[in-house]
Amino acid sequence: MSFLTVGTVAFDAIETPFDKVDKIIGGSATYICTAASYFYKNQQMVSVIGSDFPKESIQDFQNRGIDTSGLDVKEGEKSFFWSGKYHNDMNSRDTLITDLNVLADFNPVLPDSYQSPEYVMLGNIDPALQNKVLDQIPNRPKLVMLDTMNFWMDIAMDELKKVLKRIDVLTINDSEARQLTGEYSLVRAAKKVAEMGPKYLIIKKGEHGALLFDNQNNVFFAPALPLEEVFDPTGAGDTFAGGLMGYLANSGDVSFDNMKRGIIYGSTMASFCVEKFGPNRLFELTDEEIHNRVQEFVNLVQVDITLT
Amino acid sequence: MSFLTVGTVAFDAIETPFDKVDKIIGGSATYICTAASYFYKNQQMVSVIGSDFPKESIQDFQNRGIDTSGLDVKEGEKSFFWSGKYHNDMNSRDTLITDLNVLADFNPVLPDSYQSPEYVMLGNIDPALQNKVLDQIPNRPKLVMLDTMNFWMDIAMDELKKVLKRIDVLTINDSEARQLTGEYSLVRAAKKVAEMGPKYLIIKKGEHGALLFDNQNNVFFAPALPLEEVFDPTGAGDTFAGGLMGYLANSGDVSFDNMKRGIIYGSTMASFCVEKFGPNRLFELTDEEIHNRVQEFVNLVQVDITLT
Repeated sequence: MSFLTVGTVAFDAIETPFDKVDKIIGGSATYICTAASYFYKNQQMVSVIGSDFPKESIQDFQNRGIDTSGLDVKEGEKSFFWSGKYHNDMNSRDTLITDLNVLADFNPVLPDSYQSPEYVMLGNIDPALQNKVLDQIPNRPKLVMLDTMNFWMDIAMDELKKVLKRIDVLTINDSEARQLTGEYSLVRAAKKVAEMGPKYLIIKKGEHGALLFDNQNNVFFAPALPLEEVFDPTGAGDTFAGGLMGYLANSGDVSFDNMKRGIIYGSTMASFCVEKFGPNRLFELTDEEIHNRVQEFVNLVQVDITLT
Repeated sequence: MSFLTVGTVAFDAIETPFDKVDKIIGGSATYICTAASYFYKNQQMVSVIGSDFPKESIQDFQNRGIDTSGLDVKEGEKSFFWSGKYHNDMNSRDTLITDLNVLADFNPVLPDSYQSPEYVMLGNIDPALQNKVLDQIPNRPKLVMLDTMNFWMDIAMDELKKVLKRIDVLTINDSEARQLTGEYSLVRAAKKVAEMGPKYLIIKKGEHGALLFDNQNNVFFAPALPLEEVFDPTGAGDTFAGGLMGYLANSGDVSFDNMKRGIIYGSTMASFCVEKFGPNRLFELTDEEIHNRVQEFVNLVQVDITLT
């Protein structure tokens, strides 16, 4: 059994109202696989980097139980680079630079050594590539989760709708759910998404938490932890997905009840992610810290009401 | 023992993307007292209206256990009138008309028949009037809750800070919490509010739920129920406050744990309020509907995580 992630591995430059960093490793697959590594070891990564990407970071991935055979290193080329600046409210940001570099020709190929994975996380890339990944997996995985964004809805809606028919869990934010379905009400949006294919829809609302819908009108709400300081939100959504998928892969249970638990673990990992620049906080967590933070999430909504 | 509410009783004209109504009764005290009446009967109301206000509505208040001796009827004058139009997202609105009428000279006077109340709700009016109400209560009430808004922070901050020293619970929205304290982080804002006087701070976030902070670093989050349709959000905040205060007055318990329960009941009443125009939905609820809705709130965040 294994857990495959397809996404980006990159360099980021990030500026927040508090501080800035010129070059730090990032990319969706970096956050997803690192967060998942706290729960599940047998991971496979598919991405593309240039020869400028630090060997030690690849070694770190491997030390975390992540097979990097599918990490295509383009000799003499440069890794994907993104630069962004957060506004004072930390909820919105401007993209300053997007240098696709090796990502421009990204052609995800699953190595023969990657046996048919049971858990698949398709990070936010071109839906055509997401379809291409699924084409290479002969046996239907137990759970496929997909992340996407408004950009792909604008320019590749048909391809996106095609891949939505082939997945189990869609994770998007509230404005993307509204754009995808044309419904303002998230309850109605969830019903339309269910008709498009996915069994589960997770709507990420950042500092306002996350909603889980299934296709049987069940709904679950997970809060975000009120934090004294959000240092850098970069990668929080991918970290959420990674914590969730790692938890599910480890437990082998994709029921609605276990999705709820997974979302609390995903939210927990995301709450750590924002405490330092980039993925730095995710490199140093202890099981005890995670345990205590999960307890905080459980306590946050705990209320004893006796209904007779 | 009694529960006193001071606020407005008024007419509203409301336009939403779905429908409109030219004249419907409204005002903070209308929503607060009506919501509270499902939990607590010995209520007292202080407000001002013109002789145009329907006698049947006053009779309805009385039938709900609300003493209207403090409802000052100005013969030959007109009641406060507000008109507003909601945008498509239902989260923002434009005020079209504000005719203060009798409210311009509102001078809240507690009748002698109102014995010193134990629970006091100060609806969103001029902080100078809120102070004046407290001046008329000889014995310190068990719990005083206050609602206010950005408008009073703009023009009457000193008077507002004065009344904050005399109350137990402040209820405002997230942007008002930020304006009042100058802190973007709600956790930090809560600490500053605690220094201003209130033991409890409730931050209402509309469709994103509500946060409760006490002055001992305890925090509780109550979700909002994801609704298929929000018909008219008018009065939802006051309804929340009324449900909460009615629940607290009935139980006689103002501990943090009971505040949490009260907030679920307040959220429940607010979720009904938005289903019809104005307070209409609040006039027709059954105990069974309330019970079932509370259960929905409890289920919404229910997750079984075994932490060892």
